[in-house]
Amino acid sequence: MNLDIQIGQGKTARRAYGIDEIALVPGRQTLDASLADTSWYLGNVKREIPIIASAMDGVVDVKMAVLLSELGGLGVLNLEGIQTRYEDPNPILERIASVGKDEFVGLMQELYSAPIQPELIQKRISEIQSQGGIAAVSATPAGAAKYGDAVAEVGADLFFVQGTVVSNAHLAPESVTPLELAQFCEKMPMPVILGNCVTEAVAFDLMQAGASGILVGIGPGAACTSRGVLGVGVPQATAVADCTAAREQFYQETGSYVPIIADGGLVTGGDICKCIACGADAVMIGSPFARAAEAPGQGYHWGMATPSPILPRGTRINVGTTGSVKEILTGPARLDDGTHNLLGALKTSMGTLGAKTLKEMQQVEVVIAPSLLTEGKVYQKAQQLGMGK
Amino acid sequence: MNLDIQIGQGKTARRAYGIDEIALVPGRQTLDASLADTSWYLGNVKREIPIIASAMDGVVDVKMAVLLSELGGLGVLNLEGIQTRYEDPNPILERIASVGKDEFVGLMQELYSAPIQPELIQKRISEIQSQGGIAAVSATPAGAAKYGDAVAEVGADLFFVQGTVVSNAHLAPESVTPLELAQFCEKMPMPVILGNCVTEAVAFDLMQAGASGILVGIGPGAACTSRGVLGVGVPQATAVADCTAAREQFYQETGSYVPIIADGGLVTGGDICKCIACGADAVMIGSPFARAAEAPGQGYHWGMATPSPILPRGTRINVGTTGSVKEILTGPARLDDGTHNLLGALKTSMGTLGAKTLKEMQQVEVVIAPSLLTEGKVYQKAQQLGMGK
Amino acid sequence: MNLDIQIGQGKTARRAYGIDEIALVPGRQTLDASLADTSWYLGNVKREIPIIASAMDGVVDVKMAVLLSELGGLGVLNLEGIQTRYEDPNPILERIASVGKDEFVGLMQELYSAPIQPELIQKRISEIQSQGGIAAVSATPAGAAKYGDAVAEVGADLFFVQGTVVSNAHLAPESVTPLELAQFCEKMPMPVILGNCVTEAVAFDLMQAGASGILVGIGPGAACTSRGVLGVGVPQATAVADCTAAREQFYQETGSYVPIIADGGLVTGGDICKCIACGADAVMIGSPFARAAEAPGQGYHWGMATPSPILPRGTRINVGTTGSVKEILTGPARLDDGTHNLLGALKTSMGTLGAKTLKEMQQVEVVIAPSLLTEGKVYQKAQQLGMGK
Amino acid sequence: MNLDIQIGQGKTARRAYGIDEIALVPGRQTLDASLADTSWYLGNVKREIPIIASAMDGVVDVKMAVLLSELGGLGVLNLEGIQTRYEDPNPILERIASVGKDEFVGLMQELYSAPIQPELIQKRISEIQSQGGIAAVSATPAGAAKYGDAVAEVGADLFFVQGTVVSNAHLAPESVTPLELAQFCEKMPMPVILGNCVTEAVAFDLMQAGASGILVGIGPGAACTSRGVLGVGVPQATAVADCTAAREQFYQETGSYVPIIADGGLVTGGDICKCIACGADAVMIGSPFARAAEAPGQGYHWGMATPSPILPRGTRINVGTTGSVKEILTGPARLDDGTHNLLGALKTSMGTLGAKTLKEMQQVEVVIAPSLLTEGKVYQKAQQLGMGK
Repeated sequence: MNLDIQIGQGKTARRAYGIDEIALVPGRQTLDASLADTSWYLGNVKREIPIIASAMDGVVDVKMAVLLSELGGLGVLNLEGIQTRYEDPNPILERIASVGKDEFVGLMQELYSAPIQPELIQKRISEIQSQGGIAAVSATPAGAAKYGDAVAEVGADLFFVQGTVVSNAHLAPESVTPLELAQFCEKMPMPVILGNCVTEAVAFDLMQAGASGILVGIGPGAACTSRGVLGVGVPQATAVADCTAAREQFYQETGSYVPIIADGGLVTGGDICKCIACGADAVMIGSPFARAAEAPGQGYHWGMATPSPILPRGTRINVGTTGSVKEILTGPARLDDGTHNLLGALKTSMGTLGAKTLKEMQQVEVVIAPSLLTEGKVYQKAQQLGMGK
Repeated sequence: MNLDIQIGQGKTARRAYGIDEIALVPGRQTLDASLADTSWYLGNVKREIPIIASAMDGVVDVKMAVLLSELGGLGVLNLEGIQTRYEDPNPILERIASVGKDEFVGLMQELYSAPIQPELIQKRISEIQSQGGIAAVSATPAGAAKYGDAVAEVGADLFFVQGTVVSNAHLAPESVTPLELAQFCEKMPMPVILGNCVTEAVAFDLMQAGASGILVGIGPGAACTSRGVLGVGVPQATAVADCTAAREQFYQETGSYVPIIADGGLVTGGDICKCIACGADAVMIGSPFARAAEAPGQGYHWGMATPSPILPRGTRINVGTTGSVKEILTGPARLDDGTHNLLGALKTSMGTLGAKTLKEMQQVEVVIAPSLLTEGKVYQKAQQLGMGK
Repeated sequence: MNLDIQIGQGKTARRAYGIDEIALVPGRQTLDASLADTSWYLGNVKREIPIIASAMDGVVDVKMAVLLSELGGLGVLNLEGIQTRYEDPNPILERIASVGKDEFVGLMQELYSAPIQPELIQKRISEIQSQGGIAAVSATPAGAAKYGDAVAEVGADLFFVQGTVVSNAHLAPESVTPLELAQFCEKMPMPVILGNCVTEAVAFDLMQAGASGILVGIGPGAACTSRGVLGVGVPQATAVADCTAAREQFYQETGSYVPIIADGGLVTGGDICKCIACGADAVMIGSPFARAAEAPGQGYHWGMATPSPILPRGTRINVGTTGSVKEILTGPARLDDGTHNLLGALKTSMGTLGAKTLKEMQQVEVVIAPSLLTEGKVYQKAQQLGMGK
Repeated sequence: MNLDIQIGQGKTARRAYGIDEIALVPGRQTLDASLADTSWYLGNVKREIPIIASAMDGVVDVKMAVLLSELGGLGVLNLEGIQTRYEDPNPILERIASVGKDEFVGLMQELYSAPIQPELIQKRISEIQSQGGIAAVSATPAGAAKYGDAVAEVGADLFFVQGTVVSNAHLAPESVTPLELAQFCEKMPMPVILGNCVTEAVAFDLMQAGASGILVGIGPGAACTSRGVLGVGVPQATAVADCTAAREQFYQETGSYVPIIADGGLVTGGDICKCIACGADAVMIGSPFARAAEAPGQGYHWGMATPSPILPRGTRINVGTTGSVKEILTGPARLDDGTHNLLGALKTSMGTLGAKTLKEMQQVEVVIAPSLLTEGKVYQKAQQLGMGK
C-alpha cells in the first residue's frame, strides 16, 4: 500500500517514515554475534565496519582518521574547515570549545572566513597516509571544483563531494561554472562518493554520473536544521529504502554495485541497525564520534552549515566526552545506552535477527512501531545529545 | 486517497494536516539561491518578498511599516489598536511591556476600551506614506464598516478586513447592520484583502465578493487559542491547499488571480517554505517580527483577541528581541535557528528544490513526515517562542 | 471508512478518536454569538446552558447547586460523599485541603468510611430547593438501591445513577441483589439519568431501561485513571458519536429524545464545543468548577473512586482558585486560556461555525487534527490542571 | 485490514501496536469483581493470579519467591545472578544500591564476573521449596545447558529458559554446542517455559520444541534498551496477539494448550489487563515488584543485560519502595496510580468488561486509542518509574 494522501484539494503527498518509527523483527533463526560478517567495500576500499565518521570539524582530524582506519572503520576529513584554513588548528578548536553561547555564531562566521590553503589540504592527506590511515576527504561541489586538482595530485584514497542537497542538474548564475559531477568523477583518480540525496531518481542520476557511493539523508530528523530553516527533508527510513531501489536498478542495468550510505541524525547502535535493515550498506555518523576523547571538538559538535555568513544553520552542542574512539566503535562499552561499542551492537543485532552478512541484514523484517515521545526517551535522548545535565 | 474517517457511528471527518507534519522533497534539479525569484503581486502592489507582518500591536507601527516596505516586504497596521486609540502610543506600550502576568488581562481590557479616533487612523496612514512606505491597514468587519470611509478619504494602499473567522453570509441581530463584503470591496478605492477562512467554499465566496487577496488560517496550531477556547481550527497545510483550489477555480472562471496568504502559527523560514509549497502565494507572520529591535512590542507579543472584555483569548508572550528587522527579514542572520534571514531561507530552500519562482515552489513534492515532539524540537520551539530562557 | 485494523493475527480493533484529535471547521455562514441559542431539556427540566457540574465532593455542595441553577446551568450533588456523611462538611473539607500528599489516600479512605445518613440526604435536597435551586442528585447503582426511597420521599428534581461503567445486565454474587435499572426508573418520581457508558449498544439498553439522559465517558483521556488502572476506556469523540447514534435510533423507534451528556476529561470551552459537535446535547465537567472560589474543594479536586478502601483510583489535584463560578460559567472572563466564560466560548464558537442551536452545532463539520504534544500545550494544560506552578 | 505499508521503494512493513495505543471497551454485561476467576495453569502448576515476577536480581530472591507463591502468584529466580554467585548476596545488593551513577556499569561488570556456583543453585531451590514456595527458576540458553543437570537433580518446579531473543534454530561457532531446546525440554523433569519471542512462527516452533509456556516480548516499549541499542523489538499488543494465534493453531493440531506470557514494559494494572485482552494467559513483570519493601533490590531495579562485559544494556533505576508485596499484588492499595493491588485491578477490569474468566477476558473488545504523551502521563509515568521525585 502506497497511496497518495490528499493534504488538501490542491496537494497530495506520500507518507514517509523515520528511523524512530520502525523496529526490527527477529526471524526463525538466530546467530552467534561472533558469526556476523560486517565487512563491505566502498569503491576498491574494503572495511570491516560499515560506519564512517562524518566530515565535520568537531569529529575528524588527522589523528581520528588514522585511528578509525586502524579500527576497521573510516573517517572523512572536511577539506573546507578548520584543518585546511589553519596550519595549527588546535588553538582555533580551543576557542570554539570555550566561547559563550551568544558569541558562538559570530565567532564561527569569523573563523571560517579565513582562506582555505591548498597546501594544507595536501599536507593533511599526506599526514593521514603516512601514519597508515585511509585518506578519505570531503568537499562541497564548489570546493571540489576548486581543490580537486590539489587532491588528485597528492592522491587521496576516497573523495566525498557532499552538499546539503546535490543534484546532477544544478542551475548556476552565468558568472559561475558549476561542478560537472560526471566530469569530476571521470577525472579523479580515486573513487568519488556523491550526496546528499533522498530520492530514487536523484540517487540513480548520481550513479550514472559515476559515483562509487551515494550519501543518503536530507533533514532526516524531526528537529533537524534543514527542516526547521528550509522546510526540506525526508525521514530517513523512507529515503534509504527509496535510494536502495536505485542501487538495485543500477546494478541490474550495469552490473555495478554502488553502496548506499545513510547519513544524518543517527545516534545509537539501534539507529545504525535500522538503516541497514532499510537497505543501507553503511552509515555516516557525527555526534557519536564527537564524544570520543580523541575528537577534535573536545566535547563539542557543530554542523558544517553553522558558519555560513548569510544563513547559519545548526548550532554547537555540548555532547561531552564519554570514552575513547575504540570504546565507541568496537567496545567494550562503558555506557549502557547504545552509544558505545557500535560494532558490538550491530553484530548482536545481526545475531538476534539471524543475519550472517550485511546483505542479509538488509532483508530482515521491519515493523512500523511509532515511538511516541516517552519520558524515558526524552531522558535518554537528552543525555545522548548532551542536552540534559 | 481522501476517505472520510468514521469518528463514531454518528460522525465522519477528514484528516487534516499541519505544517509540522510535512516536509519538502528535493527534485532532480537544483538552483543557485541567487536565481530564485520571490516577487509577487497583491492587487496592484508588487513586492519582492512574499512575507507580510501581521496587523498586531506588538508587531507593526508606522516605523515598522516603513522599514518593511523599504526591505521589499509589507507590514499591516491594525486600525483598532493602540496606534489609533492613543495620540502617543509609546507610554501605553511601555505599560504593556512592564505589567506583571496576573494584571495583564485586566490592563489590556482597560487600555483597549479607550475610543478609536478616526483622525488618528488617517494620521497613521499619512505618516507611513509620507515616509515612502506602503500603507496597508487592517480592521475587523465591524471596524471596516465604521472606519472604511475615513480610510478611503485619506487613501491607504491596501485594506485588510480580518476577523478570526469571516464569511460572506453573516447573520447579525436586527439592531446591527453587518458589513456587506461585496459592497465594501466595490466602494473602497484600494485592493481589499479578506479573511480569515480555511475552506475552499468560503475562499471562493470571498473571491466572488471582490477580495484581492485571501487570508487563510484559523486555529492552525495545536496549541492555538482558537482551538483551546472555541474548538475551532483547521491545520494549516490542509487549509492552504484547500483554499488554493478555490484560487485555481476562480482563475479559470474569471481570469482573475487572487493570491492566498497563509496566516497563523508560522515561526521559522521552514514554516514559510512549507506554506508556499502547499500552494500559498505569501505568508503573514507576527511573532518573528515581534522579536525585532524596532518592533513596538519591545520584546512582547500578544494576540488581537486578548483584550476582549468578555472572552479574552491568547496571551502576552515574552518573545525577546533578537536582532534588527533587516536581520530577521533579509539577513545576514545572527541566529542559526531559522528565525533570521527569512528571505535567505526561502531562496535557499527554492534553490535546493529547484524552484525558480514562487509558482514553481507551489508545485514541489511534499511528504507527510510527522514531527513527533522531540527534545530538540521542544528546546528549539521553546526558545523561538521565548518560553524557555 | 471504518475498517477493522489488525493488531495481530489474533485480534482486530477499531480506531477511536479523542477530543484532542479533532477540531471544528467554519462553514459558509457565520452568526453573531448573541444569536446562538444554547438551551436544552433534561427530562422536563429546561436549562439555558448545556453544562452540568459533576457530582464530585470538591465541586458541588448545596451552595454551588443553587448558584449554578441561578446562572442557567446545573450542579449535581453526590449522595455518597462528604455532604451526606457529615452534618457539617466544612471541617472535613478543610482537612482534605490541608493534608500532605503522602497521607492523602489514607485520610480519604478513613473519611469516606463514615456512614451515609439518609436524613442528611433529605436535608441537602431540601436546602437546595428552599433556596430556589434545582435539586439534582447522584448515587452509584448500589447507593441508588439503598437511598432511592429517601430521595423519592423528599422529591429531588433529577436523579443521576452513575458508576464508572454501568450496564443493564449486571451479574452479582447471589448474596447481593443488584439494582434493576428499569424498575428503578419506573418507580422514581423524577427523571433518572444513567451512565456512564461508551457504546451504542449499552446507550440503547439504558434508554430502553427508561433513562431520561445518558452519561457518556469511560476513561476518555489518555492519562485517565480508568485507563491506567483498569485498561478500560474509549476516547471521548468516538464514544459520544457512537452513543449519539443510539439516541437517533431510539428517537426513531419511540419518539422519545434522550439527551447524551459527555462526561469526563473536559477542561476548556473548546473541549465542550467539540463534544457537542460530535453529537452531545450537554456536557458534565468537574475540574473547571473545582477552580471556582465558591467550590467546596477550596482549590482541590479529587475523583470519587479515590477513597476506595481496596483499589483507590485518581488522586487529589491542586487546581487552585481562579475566579467566581459566574466568571467561569458565564463570564466576563478574567483568564484568557479557555477556562473562564464557558458559555461565551460556546456561543462564540457557535457563531463562528454558523450554528443557531445546539442541534445545528451537532452537525458542524469536524476534521481530524492530531494535537501532538507541543511545548505550548504542555504549558497550557499543566497550568489548567494546576500541575505547573 | 492488515495491509503492508511501503516504507520506501525497497521495503514494506506492517504496523505494529503497543499496549499504550489500545484500550478496552465495556460490553453489554458487567460483573461483580468478586465473581471474576483469574486462575490459570502453567504446565501442571495452578495459580490463582496470572502475574509472575521476573527473573531479575532486584526483584526475586528466595524470600520473594516464597511470598509470591503464598499470595497466589509466582516469582522466578535468576540462576545466573547475584543469588547464585554469592553465598551471602546481601552485602552485594547493598553495594549496588549505594554505588554512584557513574561507577554503576563498571561495578556491575565486576560483580557479575564472579563465578556461578552450581551448589548455590541447588541451595536456593531447596530454600524456596522448604518454605513451601514454588521453585521457578530461569537461565539463559547457555546457562540452561550448563546448569540444567544441577537443577534437574534437585528438582525445581518450573524451568524458564530465557534470552533476549530465542529461536529454535540458533547458529553457533563450531567450538560451541548450542542448547537444543527440544532435547532440553524432553530431558528436564519439570515444565520448561521458553522465550522470549514475538512472532507466530517462532512461538509455534518453541511449542513444537516442547515448551509448556511461551514468554512474549522483545523490545516492547518505545524507550526500551533493545530498541535503542539493537533496533530490535515489536510493540507488545501486536506481539501478544500474533503469538496467541500460534497457541490456537498448536492447540487445534495437538490438543495441547501452551499459555502465552506477556513479558516486558508492563507497569500498571491497566497494562496487565490490556495484555490479557490481546490474548495473553499471564504476564511477567519486574519493576512493579522491585518497588516492594521485601524486594532484594532495595528500591533499585536493573536489567539482566546490564552487566554484560562487552555490550551492557539497560540501566539501574531508582524505583523506590512503595509498599509490601502483598499490597502490590493483592492489596488493599495504598497508592491510587494503578501500581498497587494489581489483582484487584484485574478483577475490577474483568467485572467492568463482563469477563468471568481469563478466557473471556481474552475476547473483550479493543479499540486503538493512541495515548499521545500528555502532561498527566508524563507525571504519572515519571513517578511510576521513579524518575520524578
